[in-house]
Amino acid sequence: VSGVDRVYERAQLARRLGAIDTCVATVDQLGRPDLAIIATPPDQVVDTARRLLEQGARVVTDVGSVKAGIVDSLVHPGFVAGHPMAGSEGSGPASARPDMFVGAKWVLSPTSRTFPHALAEVRRLVHMMGAIPVVLDARTHDEAAAAISHVPHMAAAAVAALVGRHPDGDAILELAGGGFRDVTRIAKGDPGMWTAIAIDNPYLAGQLRDLGEMICGVAGAIADRDRDRLRSFLESGRVVATKVAARALPHEPTVLPSTNGRAPVGADGEAESGLARAMATSMPSMR
Amino acid sequence: VSGVDRVYERAQLARRLGAIDTCVATVDQLGRPDLAIIATPPDQVVDTARRLLEQGARVVTDVGSVKAGIVDSLVHPGFVAGHPMAGSEGSGPASARPDMFVGAKWVLSPTSRTFPHALAEVRRLVHMMGAIPVVLDARTHDEAAAAISHVPHMAAAAVAALVGRHPDGDAILELAGGGFRDVTRIAKGDPGMWTAIAIDNPYLAGQLRDLGEMICGVAGAIADRDRDRLRSFLESGRVVATKVAARALPHEPTVLPSTNGRAPVGADGEAESGLARAMATSMPSMR
Repeated sequence: VSGVDRVYERAQLARRLGAIDTCVATVDQLGRPDLAIIATPPDQVVDTARRLLEQGARVVTDVGSVKAGIVDSLVHPGFVAGHPMAGSEGSGPASARPDMFVGAKWVLSPTSRTFPHALAEVRRLVHMMGAIPVVLDARTHDEAAAAISHVPHMAAAAVAALVGRHPDGDAILELAGGGFRDVTRIAKGDPGMWTAIAIDNPYLAGQLRDLGEMICGVAGAIADRDRDRLRSFLESGRVVATKVAARALPHEPTVLPSTNGRAPVGADGEAESGLARAMATSMPSMR
Repeated sequence: VSGVDRVYERAQLARRLGAIDTCVATVDQLGRPDLAIIATPPDQVVDTARRLLEQGARVVTDVGSVKAGIVDSLVHPGFVAGHPMAGSEGSGPASARPDMFVGAKWVLSPTSRTFPHALAEVRRLVHMMGAIPVVLDARTHDEAAAAISHVPHMAAAAVAALVGRHPDGDAILELAGGGFRDVTRIAKGDPGMWTAIAIDNPYLAGQLRDLGEMICGVAGAIADRDRDRLRSFLESGRVVATKVAARALPHEPTVLPSTNGRAPVGADGEAESGLARAMATSMPSMR
């Protein structure tokens, strides 16, 4: 396993940590890898993938958070767009952990032009990481990622920013407990990366507007002392929060899903459309 | 230590768990306690406190999340309104933990009529729990509690509810990772209790409207591809999230604050007004 990073010292750190075997200084020096994984900022994925494919890489995949723009710009039979649904607010080799992807869903978004063997190869990689491959078309992925990752990130940042702009913000923050910390934790992520994600995801602005309007509606219900409306809003939030808390999730090694590493998956080389159908094909718990 | 609960079996469970020594069936049977702690739903605090004071309780305090309405309705020298800034989404004796309040701030909101010895007594209780007393007037508390607890709760519920109302909500939820779970965790709290809190807090509707408008503004910045505005929004959220993550918080026994149980506190019997000033008096880290 060879690695390359914009900052050579980071690649060296990855080698010292055992994440890679050798490190090189440039993408060219990687030569013709059997399988290349791109984890650059989103706006460099397409160029990097193209270079790798041109210099003879057999299969190339990426781990970017938004897929539609990438899939539209890069139609190549050796490219399989991907997105592991796990991570942390940290970055660089020092934030790496060997169990990062264990039990996580890992979305793959091949197109009708993707070679079946390329998808099979990336799928094998996902299984090796202990993750569960889910084949979804790029737009379905982006809509789902907005709802469970990008909207929550923006909401967390907004809750934090609201305290920050209060004249007594620092004093108020001294009273914060574990709830505030948990809600705002993901807002520690890199603003540059999240700006790029926000601009790239074609579904985010619409969903965020819905969220903002929902919250203004809740403010209205409070002002109107409309207990029924408030209670039904809180109940609908509770149902979802309880569902997700009950499921086994990445980073909970004591409750790994029993499907780990051997989940039945959709037909190779065929991108499903329609999230519910795709998930029903991919995941036993949806049947 | 005697306990009473609407449901007698819950009081018995608390006794079996060692949280209380004896349990009785009614508030009357408590007689004339030296110190009574009320942990009822918010709308029953005032009536319960009044009954206890009438039957001869020397000092009465409560743990409700909103203080202005209570302090306005119950001006009695033996009553000290309180709010520990710690808890969980669980309820009842089975969710109790001995270290729940260790390292947490615990707001006390006496009035100009409160007996100094009553405040001193409740303060002693707070120290015994390992918490740090912070004297704040009721309205200042409510404004701060809206920002760090009640707004985050509503935002978490909205993020969860948004997924819930999507036709493919359950399928989308299958892709959720630790970030979504952390952001929505507090939304598992009891909808009835949170409806009462929302209606009681006079600052919540206004702050929630600000949050909703901020989020709609972020949606607009994304639609306009305004990278500078997005980045500065995300940066302001990151600053606050990083500050709160860096502080020692309740339920992190390995990093208890060094001030635990012996924090210098404000002058007895005097409610401070102006949050920053009050906190500067109460907490060493603000000096």
